Amino acid sequence: MIDTSSILFRLAGTIEARRLADPASSYVAKLLHGGQDRILKKLAEESAEVLMASKDGDRKHITGEMADLWFHCLILLAHHGLSPDNVLAELERREGLSGIDEKAARKTE
Amino acid sequence: MIDTSSILFRLAGTIEARRLADPASSYVAKLLHGGQDRILKKLAEESAEVLMASKDGDRKHITGEMADLWFHCLILLAHHGLSPDNVLAELERREGLSGIDEKAARKTE
Amino acid sequence: MIDTSSILFRLAGTIEARRLADPASSYVAKLLHGGQDRILKKLAEESAEVLMASKDGDRKHITGEMADLWFHCLILLAHHGLSPDNVLAELERREGLSGIDEKAARKTE
Amino acid sequence: MIDTSSILFRLAGTIEARRLADPASSYVAKLLHGGQDRILKKLAEESAEVLMASKDGDRKHITGEMADLWFHCLILLAHHGLSPDNVLAELERREGLSGIDEKAARKTE
Repeated sequence: MIDTSSILFRLAGTIEARRLADPASSYVAKLLHGGQDRILKKLAEESAEVLMASKDGDRKHITGEMADLWFHCLILLAHHGLSPDNVLAELERREGLSGIDEKAARKTE
Repeated sequence: MIDTSSILFRLAGTIEARRLADPASSYVAKLLHGGQDRILKKLAEESAEVLMASKDGDRKHITGEMADLWFHCLILLAHHGLSPDNVLAELERREGLSGIDEKAARKTE
Repeated sequence: MIDTSSILFRLAGTIEARRLADPASSYVAKLLHGGQDRILKKLAEESAEVLMASKDGDRKHITGEMADLWFHCLILLAHHGLSPDNVLAELERREGLSGIDEKAARKTE
Repeated sequence: MIDTSSILFRLAGTIEARRLADPASSYVAKLLHGGQDRILKKLAEESAEVLMASKDGDRKHITGEMADLWFHCLILLAHHGLSPDNVLAELERREGLSGIDEKAARKTE
């Protein structure tokens, strides 16, 4: 049985491994070599696709677009030398401090 | 020691628990009661903040904004009756099929 | 001397004229035939490019990306059978009512 | 009779006039004093609202959200010391060169 909780770390590892691949044959290498703006443009596009899928209301489509968004988030993190662990640790820190809910509420006030 | 890989599931559980909370005192309840467009607007806003933080190049700030984005992704998933497990399983399915890299490349052609 | 104030109307006319053009040779026809989501995806992308150009701070680049954004706004309006005149009339209506400034402030409260 | 084509210029003038107003009483002054990121966040939000309105398909709502988006574009231009005239002149330049359609197509290749 595969443990889904580790997939983000495995993907981050795959992305790192592709960093030195040929941009002509690897999508990840092309994005990482293309520079930050290219990655950010894709992130914005995937974010918009999540919005559109959400308005359409098809759960399978929403799941697929969210997977695309998270995958491109991992590529942006890799671009900055960050890993999913940094983000998950930050989510945990907030949870530990005072509950993410109240924290988020305080932040938006 | 806390295992970071399970934080997404714990947060999804917290979000579910807040579903019936008082929107006046819970940020998550307010978003879930406010309807889909309110959640999508926040998602778009957090996505833009990731872009701005990335351009600024401060890794601590990028990590914080990415945590915000992922947290609001979990709220949108909850709105649709989906869990992070659905998205992670989809990422795993693609990895299993043919490698996420080639899959993504094929998809964008 | 060319009057810049009429360019939005001329562009809207050009977009209408391209509606029946061959999608293989006309970018506008391709977008209009490709359906709403394709147009929205481009709009989101151009909006993100305005953000990135703004962060870079180069005024010539900002101007170019804003032109792209407005052009794709006109294509979306055309998709819905709307013209720039509808949007400009709405801006005028708000100005006439109570001043756009106070109106906008009231709206966001 | 009011000429709609001049509303963008009148609004740009109003925005300039509000630059020195009290941020406590003027929405535009608050945005201009709040700094670039605050303006960009609003632009991203308005862009997302155009997407959502478009998916809902209500033409009156689409017109209103597009008006909001263009208004915040004018504020961003003002932040950078640019006017709508700069953007309209750029659109005209492209039209004059070779037709906006072919130009746009060439650009995206």
